[in-house]
Amino acid sequence: MSSVIGNNIRLSVFGESHSDGIGCVIDGLPSGIKLDFDRIKNEMKRRAPGKDKASTPRREADEPRIVSGVLNGVTTGAPLAVFIENTNKKSGDYENLKKIPRPSHSDYPAFIKFGGNNDVRGGGHFSARLTAPIVFAGAIAKQILEEQGIFIGAHIKRIGSVCDSSFDFNNISEDLLKKLSLKSFSVIDESIEEEMRAEIEKYRLDGDSVGGEIECAAIGLPVGVGSNIFDTVEGKISSFIFGVPAVKGIQFGLGFDFAKKGGSEVNDGYAIKDGKVALLSNNNGGVLGGMTSGAPIVFSVAMKPTPSIAKPQKSVNLETMENEELVIKGRHDPCVAHRAVPVIEAATALAILDLMI
Amino acid sequence: MSSVIGNNIRLSVFGESHSDGIGCVIDGLPSGIKLDFDRIKNEMKRRAPGKDKASTPRREADEPRIVSGVLNGVTTGAPLAVFIENTNKKSGDYENLKKIPRPSHSDYPAFIKFGGNNDVRGGGHFSARLTAPIVFAGAIAKQILEEQGIFIGAHIKRIGSVCDSSFDFNNISEDLLKKLSLKSFSVIDESIEEEMRAEIEKYRLDGDSVGGEIECAAIGLPVGVGSNIFDTVEGKISSFIFGVPAVKGIQFGLGFDFAKKGGSEVNDGYAIKDGKVALLSNNNGGVLGGMTSGAPIVFSVAMKPTPSIAKPQKSVNLETMENEELVIKGRHDPCVAHRAVPVIEAATALAILDLMI
Amino acid sequence: MSSVIGNNIRLSVFGESHSDGIGCVIDGLPSGIKLDFDRIKNEMKRRAPGKDKASTPRREADEPRIVSGVLNGVTTGAPLAVFIENTNKKSGDYENLKKIPRPSHSDYPAFIKFGGNNDVRGGGHFSARLTAPIVFAGAIAKQILEEQGIFIGAHIKRIGSVCDSSFDFNNISEDLLKKLSLKSFSVIDESIEEEMRAEIEKYRLDGDSVGGEIECAAIGLPVGVGSNIFDTVEGKISSFIFGVPAVKGIQFGLGFDFAKKGGSEVNDGYAIKDGKVALLSNNNGGVLGGMTSGAPIVFSVAMKPTPSIAKPQKSVNLETMENEELVIKGRHDPCVAHRAVPVIEAATALAILDLMI
Amino acid sequence: MSSVIGNNIRLSVFGESHSDGIGCVIDGLPSGIKLDFDRIKNEMKRRAPGKDKASTPRREADEPRIVSGVLNGVTTGAPLAVFIENTNKKSGDYENLKKIPRPSHSDYPAFIKFGGNNDVRGGGHFSARLTAPIVFAGAIAKQILEEQGIFIGAHIKRIGSVCDSSFDFNNISEDLLKKLSLKSFSVIDESIEEEMRAEIEKYRLDGDSVGGEIECAAIGLPVGVGSNIFDTVEGKISSFIFGVPAVKGIQFGLGFDFAKKGGSEVNDGYAIKDGKVALLSNNNGGVLGGMTSGAPIVFSVAMKPTPSIAKPQKSVNLETMENEELVIKGRHDPCVAHRAVPVIEAATALAILDLMI
Repeated sequence: MSSVIGNNIRLSVFGESHSDGIGCVIDGLPSGIKLDFDRIKNEMKRRAPGKDKASTPRREADEPRIVSGVLNGVTTGAPLAVFIENTNKKSGDYENLKKIPRPSHSDYPAFIKFGGNNDVRGGGHFSARLTAPIVFAGAIAKQILEEQGIFIGAHIKRIGSVCDSSFDFNNISEDLLKKLSLKSFSVIDESIEEEMRAEIEKYRLDGDSVGGEIECAAIGLPVGVGSNIFDTVEGKISSFIFGVPAVKGIQFGLGFDFAKKGGSEVNDGYAIKDGKVALLSNNNGGVLGGMTSGAPIVFSVAMKPTPSIAKPQKSVNLETMENEELVIKGRHDPCVAHRAVPVIEAATALAILDLMI
Repeated sequence: MSSVIGNNIRLSVFGESHSDGIGCVIDGLPSGIKLDFDRIKNEMKRRAPGKDKASTPRREADEPRIVSGVLNGVTTGAPLAVFIENTNKKSGDYENLKKIPRPSHSDYPAFIKFGGNNDVRGGGHFSARLTAPIVFAGAIAKQILEEQGIFIGAHIKRIGSVCDSSFDFNNISEDLLKKLSLKSFSVIDESIEEEMRAEIEKYRLDGDSVGGEIECAAIGLPVGVGSNIFDTVEGKISSFIFGVPAVKGIQFGLGFDFAKKGGSEVNDGYAIKDGKVALLSNNNGGVLGGMTSGAPIVFSVAMKPTPSIAKPQKSVNLETMENEELVIKGRHDPCVAHRAVPVIEAATALAILDLMI
Repeated sequence: MSSVIGNNIRLSVFGESHSDGIGCVIDGLPSGIKLDFDRIKNEMKRRAPGKDKASTPRREADEPRIVSGVLNGVTTGAPLAVFIENTNKKSGDYENLKKIPRPSHSDYPAFIKFGGNNDVRGGGHFSARLTAPIVFAGAIAKQILEEQGIFIGAHIKRIGSVCDSSFDFNNISEDLLKKLSLKSFSVIDESIEEEMRAEIEKYRLDGDSVGGEIECAAIGLPVGVGSNIFDTVEGKISSFIFGVPAVKGIQFGLGFDFAKKGGSEVNDGYAIKDGKVALLSNNNGGVLGGMTSGAPIVFSVAMKPTPSIAKPQKSVNLETMENEELVIKGRHDPCVAHRAVPVIEAATALAILDLMI
Repeated sequence: MSSVIGNNIRLSVFGESHSDGIGCVIDGLPSGIKLDFDRIKNEMKRRAPGKDKASTPRREADEPRIVSGVLNGVTTGAPLAVFIENTNKKSGDYENLKKIPRPSHSDYPAFIKFGGNNDVRGGGHFSARLTAPIVFAGAIAKQILEEQGIFIGAHIKRIGSVCDSSFDFNNISEDLLKKLSLKSFSVIDESIEEEMRAEIEKYRLDGDSVGGEIECAAIGLPVGVGSNIFDTVEGKISSFIFGVPAVKGIQFGLGFDFAKKGGSEVNDGYAIKDGKVALLSNNNGGVLGGMTSGAPIVFSVAMKPTPSIAKPQKSVNLETMENEELVIKGRHDPCVAHRAVPVIEAATALAILDLMI
């Protein structure tokens, strides 16, 4: 099991949902960065559960304790380690999960892989709770990137049948990204929030869950970051993004719509604007030949519905090897797409920082 | 620029479209593998250009010369190096590309990144020709995997507006994959080939190109391969797949359709079949919590239209910094999706081998 | 700054001498290992300071708190994170170190590298205290290796002018290594301990420190572990061993004595013994062509004298850029060689585990 | 088997002594470097065999053919691949080596590791001939470093009982290093060359071989390169140096002599000289806390005698499992230390370049 990523910035994530705590070590940060703790706190809060009916009612203080790497609020250059206590554990809820795997969850392959030794309480190391340290690390990455003029923001593009407006691929403002990256329910078209929440509530009341799509953008990168073949911007971002639970797809720019198009329709031409080379369109989502083109990086991510639902489901008993109906109790999110927005931003920030350092 | 990938099997790809040659070094192969050269040759031929109107008329012998790592047809355990001469170069065609970047191609960011030192002839190191050594390496990976009962095959799911049948996610036979992986124009529904070729020809005659989608599957993997967070099967496959030129998206199982669905609709339940745990559906495309579930791995890949088209396009002159109309001459593919099928299979085989060794 | 190592087992070490705490994350451990906590505690104790006059009087509880990766004493397969509080800090002692670098210590290059942002208190991340989590991780590695019949032990070969007996390269028993690896002052010839302690005391009373040499052995490895060129057993062990502060050299088998010898004198011949291939000598220290030969791995390590001494030393003031005499107060080891024995064993165990998993 | 190294510059070495050829791929080189081919040729020549009685009479043209990554003599930024034909193979000499392992050579562990599939002719991938591509890559690394004011040179410190002068650790001139790095028999005290050659000849005439020690230095590095724990300058250089066949030890600065010394004797004090911080001595060999101190990097390397000697040796027959006397015919070096000087310089240059890019 590998929870380490990055070539230049190495992020090592640890913890299990019901272990003593969770956290991460960030190795390779520059020294001398004055951390903005309000910013970090806000990012953590965006991800944290228990805010309203759209999330699991489990509440966690999620108070990050910085163990090393920071002195008087400034990075020292030593590995930055952060530790978050698990304060709210209700292990009783998860007792029968050891033998009856939840459909579409990691339970069954984990049981086989770890021979039953893995901590199944709350999903163990597979819990979405492990995204908290990723958000923490991402908040720092964002701050470092912003000092270089690079801004990242994401929004909920779709939940079930309700869609937000899309980014204008070739024209994304710093203001928009800043605004999105502060919200706890990030949408471009604010009038859509209520409808989206209603969609989630509909599924929740039905004992069900619903999937979603998140669109993310990054602006301000210089031209030529990344490279072709095996160090592409797309591949680097993907390897971080697939570390976020429930992600099942990623597409850059037009993505799957490219398959239906002719080159003359979608090629991104060039023109000189104000003495500089500019792209006339950005169907490629800011990446050409694996490298940044200077246009905004834009991609969207597919999130599957939370596998844990209240409805009875077909499963098996791994001990008796008999079919068994599973009814999951406990606290669960009817949708993870809205809570995943800051996680996607964080993973993107870490991927881009790793490309740029 | 990084053209090295893999943790356990390390693949280092080298070459430029018009340099002396191209090739790769595969480090970490087990010794004692008797190579099936007919198989390798067939894979190379599937990818090779010049077969018919659907591909560029450039012909290359693409004769791989094994330089080391094989003795009497059997791997020695030393790095396997292969060298493919570039025999058919028409550099004259590419003269003005140095200063006038082709839209949607790597030219512009490469010019900025390499300060004009990169070899632009034929796309240089960014040429799709570099997929030849990937196919060679993938042919060996496939053979090693097949000896372990793992089979990989892909087909053209879509070209423009013409679609092939999809895989039945939870029921993919060895026979089907074997059949697909021998074809030079891989489709499940053979009656669709003519229509797809007509679609390509339509764009070609129009001086245009067209995109496509490729669907790939792998069967026979044990349960529990891969891991969560940063070593997921999805992330690993993606990092190899985005090394293939023109790929702009990847989705596993239902992928982006998950966003519109409820958990109760798409969760993959379990049942005991013949005394073993079986999945009742495979919407997750064979991956749960980043690990293999035992069901087939299924994913699809979006390919953009070949950027090089005959129609005039808007570009700029990077020396004079003036707008310029670009008319690309030379030999180009009206579509790369069909030729990319063996490349996608090869990249998948290499990713899976890297996960399993 | 990189404090991550390993390809298969990844160890990420964090902490600073006077930060909240220190610790490490071990990623890639197999699940199902029942940890021997007495063993771990004993290893920690062997390294811990404050035991007698031969070490710094700073006392630390060094109580490792396992944060994740272990459930009911058994590894879960998730990253194992351990946290050790820094309980005994006397920061006042280190005030002038920020501007006046201690000779032969990391202070000066660290000042330049980190622009004065690094935590200088107690040496910060450069403190030998950071070897505590390495010893913790090594104790687990040792246990896993012992279950495979691999035993590791080290002893103080030399302190100043006092030498212990050397290993008999080709004949090292499990009993001897087990005995050595439990001692807090490891010597083969027990009669030498008193003399060695007297040597340290002599330097201590003189306000000075003294260097030493440690010899380490590993037995029970199968033939053929490691490989040539860039994954040699020697290179792998060295990359871990040079992570231990104060190490300035490493030699395998005869090491530097090889330079004075003829091949006919030192070549390790073969003979059949009890139906198996045996080496007639082991001047190569158990490694041939970068791979294990089946004979014990034997190497020795040079440790420089602790740079921190009570005697006045020549230094400079980095602010005023004037020469300055430095008198180091505070608590310091007159010798680190004896305390480094379990650290060398730990680093060796981690390197070998990384080679074998 | 891993023949790939480096984090920022990745070097992948391939080939076997009697395969079609040998070579390497260097990934990550900056574009725009105008290669000095005379320099490269001279480095290759320094290493090449067949010059005189002190080396094996096998002659190889060792003509490097650059396959990609260079256009009009300038690096393009794409992976630089080089291919060297094996032109002079006399496989007959090596026939019985498959079953009768040469003492102190890789034969026996390789036989076990590769199950007899490895190419034993000429030592296969374990041949010292594989150092030719390392020297090629190192020549380029040296050139890049020299443009940044960093110079590397080495000399034969000892062969058998004959010693050259040592470097003055704290005072090594660019002139000296340049001079050494051009020589084919590198010594500081030129009057010693004849005596050293006589020492080699003495062993050669006796059908024997002899070991040696090489001392290497690098000047001009800025302060603070490298880092502590697992990315030390010592560890990085060691991991490259142990890739050179026959190396059995490495020590920085005083190295093993530190074990006999007191801190007050060997600590490197500071003083202000010409307004800058200067070290008063350089016993630490230019590395403090794993980072460069600004003083020259100085280390020495132990080389064992060539294992292949003409004298009869004790071995076994791996097929019949009986003792057997081995008489090695064929062409062999009576000493490799002098030929290894450019290889040690090359490996050092590659390690330093990897640290600095």
